Amino acid sequence: MENNQSLYQHGTLAALVPGLFAGTLTVNELLKHGDTGIGTMDGLNGELIILNGVVYQATASGEVVKVDGDAKVPFANVHFVHLEESTPIANLTYLELKDVATKRLKSQNLFSYLSVHGTFSSMKTRVVHGQQPPYPTLTETASQQEIFDAANVTGTLTGYYSPALYAGVTSPGFHLHFLSDTHEMGGHVLDCQLTDGELAIQPLNQLQLHLPDENSEFLKADLDDEAVLSDIKKAEN
Amino acid sequence: MENNQSLYQHGTLAALVPGLFAGTLTVNELLKHGDTGIGTMDGLNGELIILNGVVYQATASGEVVKVDGDAKVPFANVHFVHLEESTPIANLTYLELKDVATKRLKSQNLFSYLSVHGTFSSMKTRVVHGQQPPYPTLTETASQQEIFDAANVTGTLTGYYSPALYAGVTSPGFHLHFLSDTHEMGGHVLDCQLTDGELAIQPLNQLQLHLPDENSEFLKADLDDEAVLSDIKKAEN
Repeated sequence: MENNQSLYQHGTLAALVPGLFAGTLTVNELLKHGDTGIGTMDGLNGELIILNGVVYQATASGEVVKVDGDAKVPFANVHFVHLEESTPIANLTYLELKDVATKRLKSQNLFSYLSVHGTFSSMKTRVVHGQQPPYPTLTETASQQEIFDAANVTGTLTGYYSPALYAGVTSPGFHLHFLSDTHEMGGHVLDCQLTDGELAIQPLNQLQLHLPDENSEFLKADLDDEAVLSDIKKAEN
Repeated sequence: MENNQSLYQHGTLAALVPGLFAGTLTVNELLKHGDTGIGTMDGLNGELIILNGVVYQATASGEVVKVDGDAKVPFANVHFVHLEESTPIANLTYLELKDVATKRLKSQNLFSYLSVHGTFSSMKTRVVHGQQPPYPTLTETASQQEIFDAANVTGTLTGYYSPALYAGVTSPGFHLHFLSDTHEMGGHVLDCQLTDGELAIQPLNQLQLHLPDENSEFLKADLDDEAVLSDIKKAEN
């Protein structure tokens, strides 16, 4: 049964910090819980953008490819999209856009989905390279990420707002990915300049968190370290 | 559909810290998500113990009463109990009991339900008095709680283990309540000495968190304050 107020999450951001990058849920299973979302693939290989039930992977080579249903994710968020209204917005930096969106949240204590479809005079994304076991830590992957820049690109900025209370479980604040309408450019958004677009927000009053309880490395990992939260701040900027 | 690996939670511990004690979910609705659990009532009135689908309220007057299905909770956890095996344990202080239980967790990164049915040579509980609006903070209620002591009491120690990562969302570590078999003594466990009993643990690989999105005070509260986590430590000891 579809529940369009529930944010489904597989895995935790905290588990990625020490390098638990092995995929633990199939894409087919993930899609049972939503048609829209973001995430990453086995080995932290690329940045996922899920739109209309299709899973796109922005890869470090610069390509965007569709993902096979049998492939596995270590960490992803999905929900069933239901946008009641959208608001025209224009001429905003990334910080200004997030500020406008924050003011339109139903509450900073709820999760929310954010979508901005529009034209961006500039879009800067990062895409992490796929890692091989033994995996490095999340912060170590940052030195191996690729940066992509596009000018005058039309597409969808998509992702979630999480209250600060859930830092470590997930990424606090806005965690946004981008996919161009041509499916040629995408990734985790580092910066952008919006020319004009439509902003829509869907409040989500439930978090359904599924933990990888069949992964022995997850079961035995020490994820309570103070360093975990500190590393999340470094890695998610 | 019953899912005996899912911990359902209504509300967050963080929301109780500044005094958001108003009930926001009926007991009848809560019981759709589990037959076993712990919680508190509207106005932080007493300590709930839910066993076999029956909701018992340990009150500050020292009585234990059954709760009406229309009554509302601001914060509660439930799940469908399914205990595959139990282990005999004996002659343990509360700290030793929690230490034994910690070693039997499938993982410190999963949620777990814990049940100890047994005889306790001593049992010390606390029960919070029901509060009236405008509500005080959670720490302020501590000065108004009642302490109950029982000797040679048989009953059920019941509650949940949550990984430290979820501190603030819920109470980290073990959060345990007690109900005597005679339903005459109960509350939030402060200390005990186990004579002998049976320990059972049920790992839970999912957290289903439901937020009170129709409560205007919850929607506008500032729950991201550093003081929230600090106050939780004070209030939950």
